[in-house]
Amino acid sequence: MIDVVMQRLAAMGVDLPVPPQPMGSYVPVIEAGSMLFVSMQGPLVNGRPAHIGLLGHALSVEQGRDAAKCAAINALAQIHRHLGGFTRIRQIIRLDGYVACTDEFLSHPQVIDGASDLLAAAFEDRAGHVRSLCGVRNLPGNIPVGVAICAELLPAASQQPPADTFPD
Amino acid sequence: MIDVVMQRLAAMGVDLPVPPQPMGSYVPVIEAGSMLFVSMQGPLVNGRPAHIGLLGHALSVEQGRDAAKCAAINALAQIHRHLGGFTRIRQIIRLDGYVACTDEFLSHPQVIDGASDLLAAAFEDRAGHVRSLCGVRNLPGNIPVGVAICAELLPAASQQPPADTFPD
Amino acid sequence: MIDVVMQRLAAMGVDLPVPPQPMGSYVPVIEAGSMLFVSMQGPLVNGRPAHIGLLGHALSVEQGRDAAKCAAINALAQIHRHLGGFTRIRQIIRLDGYVACTDEFLSHPQVIDGASDLLAAAFEDRAGHVRSLCGVRNLPGNIPVGVAICAELLPAASQQPPADTFPD
Repeated sequence: MIDVVMQRLAAMGVDLPVPPQPMGSYVPVIEAGSMLFVSMQGPLVNGRPAHIGLLGHALSVEQGRDAAKCAAINALAQIHRHLGGFTRIRQIIRLDGYVACTDEFLSHPQVIDGASDLLAAAFEDRAGHVRSLCGVRNLPGNIPVGVAICAELLPAASQQPPADTFPD
Repeated sequence: MIDVVMQRLAAMGVDLPVPPQPMGSYVPVIEAGSMLFVSMQGPLVNGRPAHIGLLGHALSVEQGRDAAKCAAINALAQIHRHLGGFTRIRQIIRLDGYVACTDEFLSHPQVIDGASDLLAAAFEDRAGHVRSLCGVRNLPGNIPVGVAICAELLPAASQQPPADTFPD
Repeated sequence: MIDVVMQRLAAMGVDLPVPPQPMGSYVPVIEAGSMLFVSMQGPLVNGRPAHIGLLGHALSVEQGRDAAKCAAINALAQIHRHLGGFTRIRQIIRLDGYVACTDEFLSHPQVIDGASDLLAAAFEDRAGHVRSLCGVRNLPGNIPVGVAICAELLPAASQQPPADTFPD
């Protein structure tokens, strides 16, 4: 069966990395019923942050967007390691974005769109997702962006979303 | 069928607005199984913030409560546009509140009760909801309060919660 | 039927308290389908905070860990009051951690591990949980840590997780 999400990621030049290890006593991915939850991911590349510091001070909006994209790629890498691919993802349900920023910074949506845009490009009509975000004091290890994702799964038996279940 | 939530909102003088557009690459509402998720809403009225700035500095607790109520009304407007009413809402499950505030501000629960009280008045025994909240650095566009809601749905066929399924 | 989680808590010397009252117009616990949600809990003991102030200023990492453990115990106390025990908990799905801290504080994972470690010790192979966390401005009542938990339930009829449903 063809994994169109993998094809689109490849066409975008996105190579899924070995996903980061958890930073504590928790798991990277969990399934509960038809829901799949991914722990908050940061912009780690090869175990090191690709960006450090606060939006509005150390980092530009464009760097923040890249950090959010990088965090989303790590979330996809966690899903890929757990499921072996993306054919069972019915839709992305929810994204929580955390932006570490200065008091004056107000462009959180543009930053987190770095993650949402990647999901839109990779999942197209299955990208869905509602979104919450906020500007926080800081994040573990001084990373500028954290992204948490929750997705809906198709039953394990059926490995492809039936075309007629996705109106619009 | 009578939509008692719409009746209660009308009795409170709450007129559901055209809900705000998303501020990025995401959707305002999504359904997954029997759950319905609404993107974080702010106190926007006609596309402009009804309140701006931090709790504890620019805004009083009462203004914060009004901002939270306004955000909750926008969340209900999103649900109404998606479902066409509230008869399929079995119960409100969860509310996440974000309060943009000064270091000294500590009255987050009173602020977010502006949203929770509205839900209690509109949904009564279906208002349920657990709650998380925190005082954040800031929010998009300098809004003082963000509210995200998740609800449980009745099956599409049955449009009214059977009385005997709600003990107490 | 034996409640192994209660046995483990007792062996650790953890005595579940009367859980704290909600701080506003919401409920401490809600069930939706096979999911159980608990409102954000703080390190309250007998209605008063066991710790106050910011990580990185008033409190050490070790005190933060204790605050997170205390918040997790309150979450378990809420679940126990709602379900009467833990035999229906299939697994812990998700933990959201909020750390009130200074700009310089970066040890959020160590702090929130105070909660995750308690869950790991009490639930063992059912401890699961993905995790999100962030460093926030502040929290209600000046508490240093907030913890919100979501769990998956077994059907009410079957009161024990069948051994063969938990691989690894």
